Amino acid sequence: MHMKRKPLSVLATMIDALRTLPGIGPKSAQRIAYHLMQNDKEGAQRLGQSVLHAIQVLKHCEQCNTFTEHSICELCSDKQRDSKLLCVVEMPTDQIMLEQTLAYCGLYFILMGRLSPLNGIGPCEIYFNRLIHRATDGIVSEVVLATNFTNEGEATAHYLGQILKAQGLTVTRLARGVPVGSELEYVDAGTIARAILDRRLV
Amino acid sequence: MHMKRKPLSVLATMIDALRTLPGIGPKSAQRIAYHLMQNDKEGAQRLGQSVLHAIQVLKHCEQCNTFTEHSICELCSDKQRDSKLLCVVEMPTDQIMLEQTLAYCGLYFILMGRLSPLNGIGPCEIYFNRLIHRATDGIVSEVVLATNFTNEGEATAHYLGQILKAQGLTVTRLARGVPVGSELEYVDAGTIARAILDRRLV
Repeated sequence: MHMKRKPLSVLATMIDALRTLPGIGPKSAQRIAYHLMQNDKEGAQRLGQSVLHAIQVLKHCEQCNTFTEHSICELCSDKQRDSKLLCVVEMPTDQIMLEQTLAYCGLYFILMGRLSPLNGIGPCEIYFNRLIHRATDGIVSEVVLATNFTNEGEATAHYLGQILKAQGLTVTRLARGVPVGSELEYVDAGTIARAILDRRLV
Repeated sequence: MHMKRKPLSVLATMIDALRTLPGIGPKSAQRIAYHLMQNDKEGAQRLGQSVLHAIQVLKHCEQCNTFTEHSICELCSDKQRDSKLLCVVEMPTDQIMLEQTLAYCGLYFILMGRLSPLNGIGPCEIYFNRLIHRATDGIVSEVVLATNFTNEGEATAHYLGQILKAQGLTVTRLARGVPVGSELEYVDAGTIARAILDRRLV
């Protein structure tokens, strides 16, 4: 018998679309789809519309490269921030974490990734030229490298640091050391080694 | 200073809509939103459209009560199925699991829930009248109760069983016992007790 591939039903199409989300497997996709249809049609409406609206209007902030519906995002437009400080992070979520500390008052540049040659992510993919352009605007005097402390994040920081220093900028990196509230017994040796090397006068 | 509540940004609106999905917390919602915007605009388009389409066109199958875009779903329209057998399940996902076994050839009725008086879910909420109407169509002769083996599922099965038996129908329940492939040492006592009570002649 010749089998024709049947088109997916409306429900199956939705489950299929949910499955492609990161962290959502087939079972979760089913559960979410039935939940939306049975208990939360309003939420489904909101979800559908907000996603479609977002892909229509979101673009990159001209200054910091984050996603925003404006040409320049709210944080970059804030005159209260110290425009001499520029913090470079990998992802918008990193920026959110830094903002939650209330310990940083400067501006940001979001790379939207990290150098990862094995995955084909070179300087172009992390908007390297835009960062150089942004950092050499004559106002920024210090660049704080806040990429992750993973191998790729460290490599990215090293690479960016070399080039930004050559532009005459002060380049700093977030401090490494023992996490606040931790007991030495349970901290890994690499972190302690780093904390010894970077020990400070009290 | 008087603080006005700012309207959410487009991105925040999307993250908010994602957060209301079951099993998705604030961090996952952020991650999904940025993933869609950065790497998968096509997937985002598909997700938004399929969800909006689904809430527009999906309705309950007139026979089995599952979600479908037709008046009668594909499975209920299948002439190959044994229309004398009617299997009652709690959710469409349960039906999918039963179908995957390839061991059942009858039709289904989906309650879209289970009796749960404490949560305000009584017979009306599980489409009780529709089930009675469906089961007493003169064709169905056996109703297989396949609600879950939880307290609420068992109570639902007991309640439905009493009333369906009064209609002169043969009512059966899925067998309980030791799971296939399991070692007795690791099976809970309740299951083994049940398996002893329900032991069969070989």
